[in-house]
Amino acid sequence: MVRMVDVIEKKRNGEVLTKAEIELFVNGYTDGTIPDYQASAILMAVYFKGMNAEEQAHLTMAMVESGEQIDLSAIEGVKVDKHSTGGVGDTTTLILVPLVAACGVPVAKMSGRGLGHTGGTLDKLEAMKGFHIELTKEQFVQQVNDLKLAVIGQSGNLTPADQKIYALRDVTATVDSIPLIASSIMSKKIAAGADAIVLDVKSGDGAFMKTLEDSKALAQAMVAIGNEVGRNTMAIISDMSQPLGNAIGNALEVQEAIETLQGKGPEDLTELCLTLGSQMVVLGGKAESLEEARKMLKEVIQNGKALQLFGDLIEAQGGDRTVIEDPSLLPSAQYQIPVVASQSGYVTKMEADDIGIAAMLLGAGRATKEDKIDLAVGIVLNKKVGDYVEKGETLAILHANSEEVTQSTELLLQHIHIEDELVTPPPLIGEIITK
Amino acid sequence: MVRMVDVIEKKRNGEVLTKAEIELFVNGYTDGTIPDYQASAILMAVYFKGMNAEEQAHLTMAMVESGEQIDLSAIEGVKVDKHSTGGVGDTTTLILVPLVAACGVPVAKMSGRGLGHTGGTLDKLEAMKGFHIELTKEQFVQQVNDLKLAVIGQSGNLTPADQKIYALRDVTATVDSIPLIASSIMSKKIAAGADAIVLDVKSGDGAFMKTLEDSKALAQAMVAIGNEVGRNTMAIISDMSQPLGNAIGNALEVQEAIETLQGKGPEDLTELCLTLGSQMVVLGGKAESLEEARKMLKEVIQNGKALQLFGDLIEAQGGDRTVIEDPSLLPSAQYQIPVVASQSGYVTKMEADDIGIAAMLLGAGRATKEDKIDLAVGIVLNKKVGDYVEKGETLAILHANSEEVTQSTELLLQHIHIEDELVTPPPLIGEIITK
Repeated sequence: MVRMVDVIEKKRNGEVLTKAEIELFVNGYTDGTIPDYQASAILMAVYFKGMNAEEQAHLTMAMVESGEQIDLSAIEGVKVDKHSTGGVGDTTTLILVPLVAACGVPVAKMSGRGLGHTGGTLDKLEAMKGFHIELTKEQFVQQVNDLKLAVIGQSGNLTPADQKIYALRDVTATVDSIPLIASSIMSKKIAAGADAIVLDVKSGDGAFMKTLEDSKALAQAMVAIGNEVGRNTMAIISDMSQPLGNAIGNALEVQEAIETLQGKGPEDLTELCLTLGSQMVVLGGKAESLEEARKMLKEVIQNGKALQLFGDLIEAQGGDRTVIEDPSLLPSAQYQIPVVASQSGYVTKMEADDIGIAAMLLGAGRATKEDKIDLAVGIVLNKKVGDYVEKGETLAILHANSEEVTQSTELLLQHIHIEDELVTPPPLIGEIITK
Repeated sequence: MVRMVDVIEKKRNGEVLTKAEIELFVNGYTDGTIPDYQASAILMAVYFKGMNAEEQAHLTMAMVESGEQIDLSAIEGVKVDKHSTGGVGDTTTLILVPLVAACGVPVAKMSGRGLGHTGGTLDKLEAMKGFHIELTKEQFVQQVNDLKLAVIGQSGNLTPADQKIYALRDVTATVDSIPLIASSIMSKKIAAGADAIVLDVKSGDGAFMKTLEDSKALAQAMVAIGNEVGRNTMAIISDMSQPLGNAIGNALEVQEAIETLQGKGPEDLTELCLTLGSQMVVLGGKAESLEEARKMLKEVIQNGKALQLFGDLIEAQGGDRTVIEDPSLLPSAQYQIPVVASQSGYVTKMEADDIGIAAMLLGAGRATKEDKIDLAVGIVLNKKVGDYVEKGETLAILHANSEEVTQSTELLLQHIHIEDELVTPPPLIGEIITK
């Protein structure tokens, strides 16, 4: 009979835990036989001593097995899921779902709402009138088999162990632990039925991981877990020192997604979608190489197939598909207020975090679960890092439902840095990690 | 308003906590406003990141102030207490109390029973028929003022915070942390009213601290705490790789204490008592130097004053003082069974821990609070490390109340090592630590 105190001591001493020891912790904590004070002690020991890939895989699978596991076997083909660690203006999911599906990869997407500068993917989709995200399990599978794509809300009983452990980490200063973050993310993807996973790990000021080193370590940890548990997994590191694309806000991002699917999106957002999409197409078995996959993705943008599939998705889930030709059907804010440069020079830095807060202050996001989102409001950036701007020129436009936007304006002026010397922005796509 | 999660994070990051932050933890955990999962998280963070002398002093005083504090101000003179971290055959308290009192230092001793190879000081004293350890506060103070010495049981409400924290450490693998051990010990001594403290930190196989390095670190931590909180504190490191003295057992140790007070005790035990006693006499202000103090101690042994004071103590607390001339009044075991050497050679090692277990198996100690002790049984060693022994010669005598002593005999034969080559035993007294 293994005692929990011995398992804690073993990890405290930096030893490797066995599958049985990790399951003792996860199952015991979930069912209440291991008290929370022992759980928090081992979490702190993991914070200091880490876990190897095998331990992280055991932890992930123990959390997966703690609750419901979505069975997507009735959907033909390799089900590839995608996860982003989150940032400001990250519209990629809206674009990738139809883009990859248009290349023949089935996309059975479960999304969340979450807290943040804007809503989650579900909120953005609901910016389209009539769009609903409640499908039965049967309808969900049927729609993916018919159309290659569907997006629904996350089921309530996925990974209850992760939910309980996360809540404890939050109050015991054990959130910032790469093995714990990696296994938490991977457990949710695997429980949601993914055969293969593409990870977009953001790095920089606007991301959870502020440094390239930490982002890389997290990406490597997640890829290692995926490979350990038999899910083909790839990751990229992408820049989040400035917001991605130009739009920050729910309806504004839907419009930007439509533009990108039309081949007219911002360069950075388009490039990121092509990179992530290529990996998804390769993992989905529809291309031999990333180059071939990229060619396919460009083609379905050019020939309009990806955009039409987005229309099919909207129609199938109760929305009005004509929005893809007429974005004026989206909710729009009452005021469009420009924020102008107070000096001439090069934009050297746009601090993503603070710009996100400016959007949240307009009503685009939630600070607590109870907050209501204004789907119409947000910010559209006219300039990005590296651009030249004249004094008095528009840096960004605030889309607001109130004329009182002083706080957001000040945040933008304070955190969009303009200097005499041109700087090279960080590369959008950093390392690609496959093992 | 400081949040506990931020205090945990601060310690986790290796920062120094303030008095207020440490009090938030100790007071909050004691009164139940800080949950145990946050307490165990910060304990594990302290395990990894340590605490400086000031933090340890704050932790100690917060624990002292969590409960009753004994007021010994009605006793004239500097009240010097002594603490040993515990070992096998450690009879020093029984000897030091009258020895130091005979030099004019008031000794108001609170002792415990504890778990271990033999009973605690209280159990040993109770081996003398009639001796009782229940005095009222007033009787206790009066007796020390009259006679210079008294020994009573520990009050129930000293350092409740330490009791609660210790119980948590025990189940969360956070016992082995020097700052936590040091503050726990010091809080109990200070709450018991000590003005000055002498510490005997044992090192070696039979001690809690197995290495000289750890023992030294613990001693330094405790001395630093004492000095921080205005209690003159000294420590010595003493060897516990082999049992101290020859007797292990309750009545057997009382007899050995009497012999030592008569000047006929084992060399190592006598030397340790002179060393610790000198420090107590100096801290008690009755001698200028350790040399002068040692001379005084030797004198009160030679002139019989220390032994007579032991008699006074016994008499005052209900026992028969004639035991100091006639040890046959002590309880004695039914069987005296010799353990003989199975080969000739030098005794190179006597593993204190295992020899202690052999005594416990005879009934001399408690494994759990509920166990009953047999005060008469134990072991008397005839040989110590460095001695030569002939095959068939007696190594030790088991004092038992059963003829069935196979297990204890085997333990002794297994853990008393006899080899051809003479070895130098570790020095009895290691470093003396005064700051």
